[in-house]
Amino acid sequence: MTQVVRSARAVTIGDELLTGKVRDRNSFELARTLRRLGISLDGIEIVPDRTIEIRRAVERAVERADVVFTSGGVGPTHDDVTMLGVAEALGRPLAPHPGMLELFSTHYGASFSESHQRLSLLPEGATLLVTPGLLWPVIVVGPVWLLPGVPEFYLKKLEAVAAHLRGPSPFFTQSLHINADELTIKDELDRVVLAHPEVMIGSYPRFKHPVYKTRITVDSRDETLLERAFTDLKSALEPYVVEYDESSDSLV
Amino acid sequence: MTQVVRSARAVTIGDELLTGKVRDRNSFELARTLRRLGISLDGIEIVPDRTIEIRRAVERAVERADVVFTSGGVGPTHDDVTMLGVAEALGRPLAPHPGMLELFSTHYGASFSESHQRLSLLPEGATLLVTPGLLWPVIVVGPVWLLPGVPEFYLKKLEAVAAHLRGPSPFFTQSLHINADELTIKDELDRVVLAHPEVMIGSYPRFKHPVYKTRITVDSRDETLLERAFTDLKSALEPYVVEYDESSDSLV
Repeated sequence: MTQVVRSARAVTIGDELLTGKVRDRNSFELARTLRRLGISLDGIEIVPDRTIEIRRAVERAVERADVVFTSGGVGPTHDDVTMLGVAEALGRPLAPHPGMLELFSTHYGASFSESHQRLSLLPEGATLLVTPGLLWPVIVVGPVWLLPGVPEFYLKKLEAVAAHLRGPSPFFTQSLHINADELTIKDELDRVVLAHPEVMIGSYPRFKHPVYKTRITVDSRDETLLERAFTDLKSALEPYVVEYDESSDSLV
Repeated sequence: MTQVVRSARAVTIGDELLTGKVRDRNSFELARTLRRLGISLDGIEIVPDRTIEIRRAVERAVERADVVFTSGGVGPTHDDVTMLGVAEALGRPLAPHPGMLELFSTHYGASFSESHQRLSLLPEGATLLVTPGLLWPVIVVGPVWLLPGVPEFYLKKLEAVAAHLRGPSPFFTQSLHINADELTIKDELDRVVLAHPEVMIGSYPRFKHPVYKTRITVDSRDETLLERAFTDLKSALEPYVVEYDESSDSLV
């Protein structure tokens, strides 16, 4: 069953990201997936492997968004404390989850151990969503979706997210490439922004690109409003517009 | 002059990061730079181009760390609201900065415009640090360092950070590669972690690596304590240790 949600936040967990040992790939993939689904990603917080930090970040996130995605800290070792942080944030105790216990005992049989028992401790009321091709299900507790830190598994689990969640409507985007810097176009741009408060307009400078100096994007959930704003923008900046296809990164 | 600081937080600003249009590179570079300087990066928050969101994130960050680095939102267009967000967070009004005005009027001469005037509005009491090779200085307001979003400029400005800040002592790291999964080594690892509470131990699984299954890292500001913990760890996991040089990504 697909649930419709409007907004999301991410809490990405791991000392290795804050010490520069590993580069975060997961947040970018999440941003792209949610965008495609029409869900607004309102913020990302990267926190260390400490229960109190995870708890606070999750508390802040669930207060402000419909769903929260955590990444990392769900393994069996001492530095895997996400489950506890989420449990504390939601005020639900950790308890052995019958579905997880069954899954592990079926899979590991005679080698089922105390560690598997510990991994079956989930915040009370957790739901398991089976992910094709992976032993571990996606764990959902209230508004919180617990995803793993390992990028290859994270990506797999985003498929489960995409199968179960979607936004109220898709996002539409148009972009314009301009061979003038932001200072030159600022007045015209300001006028268009003021005239179209219902769309989001972003301006992104490039300083060494051979073709354009500024990329302007227009975003909206409403295609008609978007087209109206984009038409206005194009005519306002007409002298500077260059044809450039970002997706193929080549001149057209 | 070099200032000694212990902890830092990052507030990274930009709708383009949350909509998946652009991948954040700056936070990773900041993490690596601070690590090298011996400054602990305690958290990263990625927020949209909205004054209230920037304000709240900066307020949280300055309350909890010695220095805060913002990235992005310092250009001349409507979506550049970092200066205002930081001013509000610190309770300092925006005011024309004589140093910025002089810099722009010298550089732009007759083409000095209203936009340059607007770009000279900084939170009261801001300090300018000149960055070799860049017109724009690094702007420092109390504990907040305002860095640009464009990665090539961000990287340049990290050089200014490295010239002016350092931690109280360097960090030391050792790592161990293990050809056993986390469940197998968990008991031994837990014993070592409990015996060495003064160092940080991290455990990172790899699922498809040809040589190792788990990487264990030991981190400390104290080299003697680190060596003691690492020696203990190596002997505890001795049957599983494999020689592997992560830096060259090849067998040794």
